[in-house]
Amino acid sequence: MAHGAGGKASRRLIEGLIVPTLCGPVKEPLADAACVEIGGTPVVITTDSFVVKPLRFPGGSIGELAVNGTVNDLAVSGAKATALVVTMVLEAGLPTKVLEEEIAAMSKVAKQANVPIVGGDTKVVEHGKADHIYITTTGIGQRINGIQLHPRLVRPGDKVLLSGPVGDHGIAILLARGEIELEADIRSDTRSVFPFIESMAEKAGPGLRWMRDPTRGGLATSLNELARDCGLGIHLSEEKIPVHDAVRGACELLGLDPLHIANEGQFVAVVAPDFAEPALRALHAIGGGEAAVIIGEVTDQHAGSVLVSTRYGGARVVDMLVGDPLPRIC
Amino acid sequence: MAHGAGGKASRRLIEGLIVPTLCGPVKEPLADAACVEIGGTPVVITTDSFVVKPLRFPGGSIGELAVNGTVNDLAVSGAKATALVVTMVLEAGLPTKVLEEEIAAMSKVAKQANVPIVGGDTKVVEHGKADHIYITTTGIGQRINGIQLHPRLVRPGDKVLLSGPVGDHGIAILLARGEIELEADIRSDTRSVFPFIESMAEKAGPGLRWMRDPTRGGLATSLNELARDCGLGIHLSEEKIPVHDAVRGACELLGLDPLHIANEGQFVAVVAPDFAEPALRALHAIGGGEAAVIIGEVTDQHAGSVLVSTRYGGARVVDMLVGDPLPRIC
Repeated sequence: MAHGAGGKASRRLIEGLIVPTLCGPVKEPLADAACVEIGGTPVVITTDSFVVKPLRFPGGSIGELAVNGTVNDLAVSGAKATALVVTMVLEAGLPTKVLEEEIAAMSKVAKQANVPIVGGDTKVVEHGKADHIYITTTGIGQRINGIQLHPRLVRPGDKVLLSGPVGDHGIAILLARGEIELEADIRSDTRSVFPFIESMAEKAGPGLRWMRDPTRGGLATSLNELARDCGLGIHLSEEKIPVHDAVRGACELLGLDPLHIANEGQFVAVVAPDFAEPALRALHAIGGGEAAVIIGEVTDQHAGSVLVSTRYGGARVVDMLVGDPLPRIC
Repeated sequence: MAHGAGGKASRRLIEGLIVPTLCGPVKEPLADAACVEIGGTPVVITTDSFVVKPLRFPGGSIGELAVNGTVNDLAVSGAKATALVVTMVLEAGLPTKVLEEEIAAMSKVAKQANVPIVGGDTKVVEHGKADHIYITTTGIGQRINGIQLHPRLVRPGDKVLLSGPVGDHGIAILLARGEIELEADIRSDTRSVFPFIESMAEKAGPGLRWMRDPTRGGLATSLNELARDCGLGIHLSEEKIPVHDAVRGACELLGLDPLHIANEGQFVAVVAPDFAEPALRALHAIGGGEAAVIIGEVTDQHAGSVLVSTRYGGARVVDMLVGDPLPRIC
C-alpha cells in the first residue's frame, strides 16, 4: 500500500522501475504533466486514476476529485485545461444511483471549471473486484502565456507561497471512513485552483518559478521533491503554515504531521522575491484565496532538505512521506 | 456485466446516462476518439481502461492491449498517435515480476508503434480489490492529412473492407481462462493497425469514408453502429469474412457468432468503390495485411441493419451484441 501513498515508496517504484522501462532514463525532474508538440503546438497532458474510499465524503466525492485533480495538475504545470476524457471501471451490481451521482458530480465540477468532457470508456468487473468505481481522468491543455516553470529556475531568496490551509482533504477522508472515534467538522478542500493560478500568472507571471498541488504525500513531500530537484534548501516557518484547528487536533491525536496530509484544492508556488507580494495580492482578491500566505523561502543552506522553524524557536527537518498513514486518499 | 460488454447494454448506459450528463445532448454519432482544438491545432484524443482477465494470454497481455488498443482507436479515427499516458491501479501484494512484465510489454509495443509514453500515475488498492492490474491508456495524436471520416459520408455502393480474420482475440482469452475443455492454437491478434491505415490513407485517402476497430461486441456491433449512424444497410457475404478454422470450431461448439467476438488487431473500413482496390492493394503490400478482403457493401435497402448472405444461399440479419458472452475481454 505504501507504493501508492505518494511518498518515498511511490517514488522508488516510479523512478526505479516504471519510468526507466516505459520512458527511458530520467533526465528531467518528474512533474505533474508532460508537454508534447502536435503540429508545432505545445500540448500539455496529464492523467490520474482515482480510487478514493469512501466514494463520497464531506466536501466532495470521487467524481469531483477526478475532475478537479486533473484540472489542477494542468494548472500547476502552467496550463489551462482544454478538454478532459474519463474512464470508469465499475463494479457489477453498483447501484445506479451511485453511478448517477458521480457522473453528475463530474459534470458539475467540469462545468464550474469550464472544461468539456469529450470522451471516455466504461468497463465492468465482477462484484468485489473494485470498490464501486475507479475513475481515470486525462486532461489536455494549453500553456498559459508568459510563464515558465522549472525547478532549475528556483533561486535562493525566492519566496514559498501557499494558497491556503493544509490537511483538510486527507483528514476529511480519514474521518469519513468512520474508523476512528473523532467528531470534527472537516471538509475536503477539493476545487479547481486554475482561477488562482490564472490570476497570479497575470499579475506576477514573470516571477513564477515552480508550482505543485500537494496531494498524496502532502506539502512536505512536494517541497522535498523540489529541494531535491533544484539542489537548494527550503526553509519554512511553522507558525505561518495555515492549518484548521480541527485538522491540527486530529493530527495530534493520530500522530500525523499536517504537512504530510493530502490536499485537493491547494497549491504551493515558488515566486521571485519582487513578485511575491503582487502574487499574494492576486490570490487575496479572489474568493477562496484569502488565506494564501508566504510560508518560507528558498535558501542555499541545507541543500536538498526542507527545514521548518517551530513556533518554540527550534527547527526540524521534514522528510518526504514514508509509509502509508492514509491509504486510498484520492 | 453486460453493461461492460460493448453491445446493446453498454450503448444504453453510455447514450442514456453517461454522455447526456457529462457531455450534453448526443448530436454526433459516437466515435473511437474526439477532436479538440488547442491553439488552433486539431488534437485527436482517446482513452480506454483495460481489465482483461487473465493478464497474459497466447499472443499478448494486458500491457500490449492497453498500448495497441489506444494507438488503434486513434488510427481508425484517422490520426497518428503522438504520445500516450498510462495509469495503473495495482492490487497490493502483486508480485513484482508481474508488474515488471506488463511494464516491459507496454514499453515493447509502444516502441514498435513508435509512440512515446510521456506520463502516468500509479495507485494501489487492497488485496482483492482489483485483479492484479487495471491499466488506463490515453493517446493524443495528429490527423493524417487528406482523410475525412464520418458515417454521413458513407454512400450506397461503398465497399466494406476487413483487414483480416475475426474472433482470434476473444476466443484466445476464453481459452486462456481454462474454463472450457478445448485445446486449440488460437492467439490474440493484438497489434498496432496504424501502418495499414497510414498506407491505405496514402493510396486511397480520398476514398476512405469510415473506419472502426471491432473490439468488444465484434464486427457485427461495429457495423450495426455504422448502419444506424448512416441510415443505410450493410450487406455482407459470410463466405468472404475470414475466420480461422479453430476460431470457427470454438464458436460452433460454444454457440457464439464469430462476428460478435472481440478483435484487437483488425479494422473495418468503408471505402468508395473506385478506391476499394487501391486500398486493398495497399494492405496486401504490408506484412500481416495479406488477408485483407472486401466482405460486402453498403446498400440503400434494409436501412439501419446488417444483413449477411450465408454460404447456403439464404440471408440473416446480424444484430449488435446482446448480453455478455465473454466478459472482461479487454
